[in-house]
Amino acid sequence: MRSITILGATGSIGTSTLDLIRQDRDRWKVKALTANGSAVELAKLAREFGAEMAVVADPARLPDLQDALAGSGIAAAGGPEPLCEAAGLGADVTVAAIVGFAGLAPVMAAVEQGKTIALANKEALVSAGDILMSAVERSGATLLPTDSEHNAIFQCLEGNDLSNVRWITLTASGGPFRTWSHEQLAIATREQALKHPNWDMGAKITVDSATMLNKGLELIEAWHLFPVGLDALRIVVHPQSVIHSMVEYRDGSTLAQLGPSDMRVPIASCLAWPARMDTSCKPLDLPAIGELSFFAPDEERFPATRLAREAAETGGSAPIVLNAANEVAVAAFLRGEIGFTQISEIVARTLDKALPKAPTCLRGVYDADSQASRTAMTMLEHA
Amino acid sequence: MRSITILGATGSIGTSTLDLIRQDRDRWKVKALTANGSAVELAKLAREFGAEMAVVADPARLPDLQDALAGSGIAAAGGPEPLCEAAGLGADVTVAAIVGFAGLAPVMAAVEQGKTIALANKEALVSAGDILMSAVERSGATLLPTDSEHNAIFQCLEGNDLSNVRWITLTASGGPFRTWSHEQLAIATREQALKHPNWDMGAKITVDSATMLNKGLELIEAWHLFPVGLDALRIVVHPQSVIHSMVEYRDGSTLAQLGPSDMRVPIASCLAWPARMDTSCKPLDLPAIGELSFFAPDEERFPATRLAREAAETGGSAPIVLNAANEVAVAAFLRGEIGFTQISEIVARTLDKALPKAPTCLRGVYDADSQASRTAMTMLEHA
Repeated sequence: MRSITILGATGSIGTSTLDLIRQDRDRWKVKALTANGSAVELAKLAREFGAEMAVVADPARLPDLQDALAGSGIAAAGGPEPLCEAAGLGADVTVAAIVGFAGLAPVMAAVEQGKTIALANKEALVSAGDILMSAVERSGATLLPTDSEHNAIFQCLEGNDLSNVRWITLTASGGPFRTWSHEQLAIATREQALKHPNWDMGAKITVDSATMLNKGLELIEAWHLFPVGLDALRIVVHPQSVIHSMVEYRDGSTLAQLGPSDMRVPIASCLAWPARMDTSCKPLDLPAIGELSFFAPDEERFPATRLAREAAETGGSAPIVLNAANEVAVAAFLRGEIGFTQISEIVARTLDKALPKAPTCLRGVYDADSQASRTAMTMLEHA
Repeated sequence: MRSITILGATGSIGTSTLDLIRQDRDRWKVKALTANGSAVELAKLAREFGAEMAVVADPARLPDLQDALAGSGIAAAGGPEPLCEAAGLGADVTVAAIVGFAGLAPVMAAVEQGKTIALANKEALVSAGDILMSAVERSGATLLPTDSEHNAIFQCLEGNDLSNVRWITLTASGGPFRTWSHEQLAIATREQALKHPNWDMGAKITVDSATMLNKGLELIEAWHLFPVGLDALRIVVHPQSVIHSMVEYRDGSTLAQLGPSDMRVPIASCLAWPARMDTSCKPLDLPAIGELSFFAPDEERFPATRLAREAAETGGSAPIVLNAANEVAVAAFLRGEIGFTQISEIVARTLDKALPKAPTCLRGVYDADSQASRTAMTMLEHA
């Protein structure tokens, strides 16, 4: 029996994780479940799984949570500090699935326990990769990547040494606008951007897929998780999203991980690692799929992956600025305030300004993030 | 420094192996090199690599070998017993690359040394799989599969347990006649059959690729090497031969090994295992390849894979009969005596006759093979 805490239990990763635990209830003890604001849904899950603690990140939703948990004996809390407290409960496995920069502090709190973290929050690695990876080394935590691409790479590296790696290739679906011209992209709507061809995900990550900044963030994430150097990291557009990523070794062997576009597969891989567990995902039927295709990325139409690579090369606070400016710009796009191509433009222009001081601790990361967000918001006003 | 013996040094696997050793000469000591009849070429290689011993399987070629090695200090020998003697020299690695049933006794001699065998001879496993795998277990030998498909599976299983495997999928190019109708197949010529779309190999295996009996033999080979049961073994036609084979786990993850159609990749994987070594094979460029396609096998036009699966299900001497009848029929096709579709017909009709006694030792395997060959030859007379 292993204990588990899920940060972001009501999101798509969280509910997929709970689906897997549901099929194997006797093997798991749920310590804490957290959500951003969905208090009623969170309370329902906390009751179902007999959690010790439920936390809403938004303190305004605490009364709802308390009401919904009345008489259950489950501790209810709200706000950023209880969130870190939940993350720091020392569960055998902590699934870190909070979207965006808000996930950073809880991830750090979980890492410091020295247990296993299934990491689905990419912004933590992008913004604080060095700090986070140092904390992992110090605490002896096991970091299992849950993003489908990084989990694929992790599986392809099994039993192999990074020194033998020639290339790591992240695959990208290319998003809903893969074949669109620059003119079409300029007038792409929110609704069009939210129609991902293969994956059913949250709004922010779906827009990031459309701009391909998602792949840029994943590139930086991979650079921290698998330190083979930026030059050994490549992106290939693969519209069917069947191959989730690849590792090429120096003998010419490439290992790839393939599977359905279903997050239960990489999550199950993290939950059962180093063993495997059953999922009800349907088997891969390549003759039914028929064809897998591959294209080089077009960084003229989709400059975001180039911006991400440059930010990684620059180092210091540049990846934080990349991420912060993107969070600001995507939110503005979702509110209908800016056009689709302006997202990458705002990111690029924010990166062109004087960069905040390179952070050496979490505090510095927050400062750089705030400063970059403010800069990006100024851009919005003139967009 | 490791010692190596290459059985079948002048064939395509043998010369590829020597290519790899040439790039890393200081790490290898060549014990023995053997060939079927190419005495002069063998002597040249034995001199280049400073082998201790050179053996021709055909004793009639021994005088040529002795002449060519005069004054070199390299021991020369000819015939089946010296071949087994060379295989049994206890090299750290023995590459077993003799084509056909003739490779069985030397493979057994190598296995009995309890060292590492890079096995490229599929007929040994097909004809004497149970006996061979028992000998491997008894001697503690490490069997590394060198066929590109089985080496791919071996790589995809790294760090994983067979109990977690849902499917193993062998990919097949489909050969030069993949899209041909039954009528076209009936009049296919020797020259057409010898034009393999992706691989440059010997004549026998190239014809086996065209009939798809090669994939049938590989199915039986995989069944012995990776005991997951026949029902968990599948064949998928993949004309580009980029994915060499795949393993699907019970969580829905599929691992695949991809690479160029160059035997140096799987051979290098065996020579360096569990590490990796450099090869000069060009990196995988999927955007340049563009497209990978997949089809279900058509066992109406290409009945050989069905015959192989049935032979494995029947067990006993049936796989020996499958292999022996095929060797007889392919030789007859190469001599122009029978048509292309008659190869599988003769295999099927030989399997329909009373099967030889199930062998319990190597002697029994030889008896069953001789008996099946004689039966197949009778078929030829009436073909």
